Amino acid sequence: MILLFTDFGLAGPYTGQMKAVLLRDAPGVPVLDLFCDAPTCNPRAAAYLLAAHAGWFPRRAVFLAVVDPGVGGPRAPLAILADGRWYVGPDNGLFEIVLRRAATAQVWEIAWRPPDLSASFHGRDLFAPVAALIARGEAPAWQARPIESARRTDWPDDLAEIVYVDHYGNAMTGLRAETVPPGARLAAGGQVVPQARTFVEAAPGAAFWYANSNGLVEIAVNLGRADRAVGLAIGSAIAVDG
Amino acid sequence: MILLFTDFGLAGPYTGQMKAVLLRDAPGVPVLDLFCDAPTCNPRAAAYLLAAHAGWFPRRAVFLAVVDPGVGGPRAPLAILADGRWYVGPDNGLFEIVLRRAATAQVWEIAWRPPDLSASFHGRDLFAPVAALIARGEAPAWQARPIESARRTDWPDDLAEIVYVDHYGNAMTGLRAETVPPGARLAAGGQVVPQARTFVEAAPGAAFWYANSNGLVEIAVNLGRADRAVGLAIGSAIAVDG
Amino acid sequence: MILLFTDFGLAGPYTGQMKAVLLRDAPGVPVLDLFCDAPTCNPRAAAYLLAAHAGWFPRRAVFLAVVDPGVGGPRAPLAILADGRWYVGPDNGLFEIVLRRAATAQVWEIAWRPPDLSASFHGRDLFAPVAALIARGEAPAWQARPIESARRTDWPDDLAEIVYVDHYGNAMTGLRAETVPPGARLAAGGQVVPQARTFVEAAPGAAFWYANSNGLVEIAVNLGRADRAVGLAIGSAIAVDG
Repeated sequence: MILLFTDFGLAGPYTGQMKAVLLRDAPGVPVLDLFCDAPTCNPRAAAYLLAAHAGWFPRRAVFLAVVDPGVGGPRAPLAILADGRWYVGPDNGLFEIVLRRAATAQVWEIAWRPPDLSASFHGRDLFAPVAALIARGEAPAWQARPIESARRTDWPDDLAEIVYVDHYGNAMTGLRAETVPPGARLAAGGQVVPQARTFVEAAPGAAFWYANSNGLVEIAVNLGRADRAVGLAIGSAIAVDG
Repeated sequence: MILLFTDFGLAGPYTGQMKAVLLRDAPGVPVLDLFCDAPTCNPRAAAYLLAAHAGWFPRRAVFLAVVDPGVGGPRAPLAILADGRWYVGPDNGLFEIVLRRAATAQVWEIAWRPPDLSASFHGRDLFAPVAALIARGEAPAWQARPIESARRTDWPDDLAEIVYVDHYGNAMTGLRAETVPPGARLAAGGQVVPQARTFVEAAPGAAFWYANSNGLVEIAVNLGRADRAVGLAIGSAIAVDG
Repeated sequence: MILLFTDFGLAGPYTGQMKAVLLRDAPGVPVLDLFCDAPTCNPRAAAYLLAAHAGWFPRRAVFLAVVDPGVGGPRAPLAILADGRWYVGPDNGLFEIVLRRAATAQVWEIAWRPPDLSASFHGRDLFAPVAALIARGEAPAWQARPIESARRTDWPDDLAEIVYVDHYGNAMTGLRAETVPPGARLAAGGQVVPQARTFVEAAPGAAFWYANSNGLVEIAVNLGRADRAVGLAIGSAIAVDG
């Protein structure tokens, strides 16, 4: 199974062309959209989102992860095997949090280049063919050299910021819920936000936080939009109020 | 074939994680997105939309239908066989109109619970595994008890409101076109809207209503957006002017 | 492989119902979304977009292309074989640029009609069944008559206008990059836009144009939105400044 984690959107030609490459190079391998709207050109926020969602998937899943504002520049292409799952994408910090949390990890810099490599769409031209090979179990066929690790950033282990706002206006943070004391309140957007177990426990229109279905602290409003009610967007800082 | 009818959107992780469960539990069964943007947290409007679109699909289709503002609360999970098609989702009225219009229907309350049931994502954790079992023809394997019927609401048989605004700005009502006298005019958004057979019969920019390709009364504007031109949104009331 | 090129969007029932027809009539044939958001009701802009993207796909690909504001009116349905790829859709100019650039082309007017043809959704009722037959290699089974060519418009061979704005705010023109002198500047939105090879060559926030991954001249902003920074939308005129 190949999981797409990108900031490409589903509209326009990008995701479709990438899927066409996967179909050509790994026919029969299921391809699913995990995130098509990871934080745009924001590998830092995306890194926490990827790490929070990857662990739900079975071992041998291949994550084709492309949030790549540096495409066409010097950043290296990577292939990573971490806790039994594969990751393919740019070396810009996107895999940093996955790697930090992994019990076991191997990292390769991809040396292979396709005959026709566009300057701006490595997702289609470089990362997708490599992901397809890996999904077919032919990882050795791509030329790569093991490296000690991917780039190390000074990003925190958990990020007290909003990293994603979903379709409903719910705002996911980069904090794993297990790191926040039960019953703690959050300071967010000038408000104090109490905890609830789930939506129906909160009064309609009231903001609350809860441990979401992927283990992240998420700020939500029962029957409303937390992004508007609390004033939250990707990058908004929050604080745990103890 | 499994049809997804949700208010999840295609962006973000929800639809992808639900499809990953279907792939795991019903490999080889085609999964299609029917509506990813059913009226948000609005099972009433969604009920008319689902009923209008389900009948186009063949018997044995399985509708995984999740518009579920009460997730995590006491509402029951249901499995329904109506006119040869299966429906899986929450007991909040979402299936009410399908059931009323069905010649034959059986309703079960799903008793099975997964080992890991999140508080907020029953679409992934509970409804998808059950839909997968049904799609594989193994319905008896899930524990369920037949119940006389799903919750009965006082909703009308046809709803004289806008229930969906599409990508083009066309506004679908909850009225089956067969219930409206041919040639009738609609009162909508302070305007009187005449009937046309199709877009090219109406003057560019003029609002009209027509029987859409799924049998609903729909208000549209040739080469324009009816939602803006007439002032319509989900919930806007309309009236048949005779 | 069937590629969907439409202005339907992925939300709502249209793309899903069309895919259900393809699944019924061409089971096992992969279906990919190429563009779900081609310029709405704008076959002229869409024609350049389709021509720019189709050539990337292998021969025998079938493009189900529906941008069809004249649906229900007198415009004919077409099937086209051009340079080894198939195209199915309305005769409204949508295939004009593909045909002009093709080394070899055959055009048929589709005479077949389904028993149930809605007035407003020929993508589902007429074009999808024909595309499915073609994808299965059974083209002769649909009744059609060869015609000399599709409708000829007076549209230019390359269009000095914006034809698409993507998810990032990048604005694609209808100009093939190979027709623009290297180093030329563009006049767009009252600005003079220089060339760059790729995003990282431009200063953050600065507008530039480049040959995009599908061969079109595209106006972009490194880490920003060109549509807002330069004031561009579908139809905005640009000029090559020499």
